Amino acid sequence: MPDSTVHHATFTLTRDLDATPERVWGAFAREDLKSRWFGANADAVIVERTFDFRPGGHERALAQWRNGMMTDFQCQYHDIVEGQHILYVYDMFVGGWKMSVSLATIQVEAKDGKTRLTITEQGAYFGEKGAMHAAGREQGTAGLLDALAASLND
Amino acid sequence: MPDSTVHHATFTLTRDLDATPERVWGAFAREDLKSRWFGANADAVIVERTFDFRPGGHERALAQWRNGMMTDFQCQYHDIVEGQHILYVYDMFVGGWKMSVSLATIQVEAKDGKTRLTITEQGAYFGEKGAMHAAGREQGTAGLLDALAASLND
Repeated sequence: MPDSTVHHATFTLTRDLDATPERVWGAFAREDLKSRWFGANADAVIVERTFDFRPGGHERALAQWRNGMMTDFQCQYHDIVEGQHILYVYDMFVGGWKMSVSLATIQVEAKDGKTRLTITEQGAYFGEKGAMHAAGREQGTAGLLDALAASLND
Repeated sequence: MPDSTVHHATFTLTRDLDATPERVWGAFAREDLKSRWFGANADAVIVERTFDFRPGGHERALAQWRNGMMTDFQCQYHDIVEGQHILYVYDMFVGGWKMSVSLATIQVEAKDGKTRLTITEQGAYFGEKGAMHAAGREQGTAGLLDALAASLND
């Protein structure tokens, strides 16, 4: 192992959502709809937020958690095909420490009257706990998709 | 499959190089040493080149190939730990078409008096030929590492 450990991991999550593809797309493309499920929650408040949904545009969500922890999602969009896919790269910081760099692909498609959402994350996680953090990221992302699904009913 | 096909693929290549870790690191960190193996070759000339090796810095190599093809490597560095690892994300364009977005990790470590170089690329390749292009990228990267190894003898 190199002195500087980097753990590489990929996960894919799929959800069939009871909403139109346009509505699911909006949950990523529109700040007001994304804010219903991403960032703020019962345990965290957003301290700083930027949102520029276009190729090359940046997004940021700096959050303060109830236990005092700070997380900082710093994202850049690399590819957007309207209604079909979104690729972005994000650095994730926890307490000012860069935990990971990830390439995320969101794919949206009509499926049997519902909408299939697929997210693939190809990540590089720093440090000796990289494998644990990769597993946690997959779990956390699954939780975000639960929140996204719930937000479609609002 | 979504209408907008994205093929995800990861490859890892390792080389034990007969040079010091400092010299191998320089092959990525110094523009003059990188230019010996990356970009220009017997079949391509560099039309435009930028090189800003620091976290957040950009690199670009726009190349014209003997057969007329244009390739455009557009890179941003996301993490650099001196002498240990380099993470960068690059969009690759061929003939103006975005072929892929990749997260690359370079790791350098001393190993039995030589230097072990490991490159891991986690890529998303667009279009119906994505799997073919992923295989080609791995092959092309292996060729680049051959060129890097040869450049160390200069």
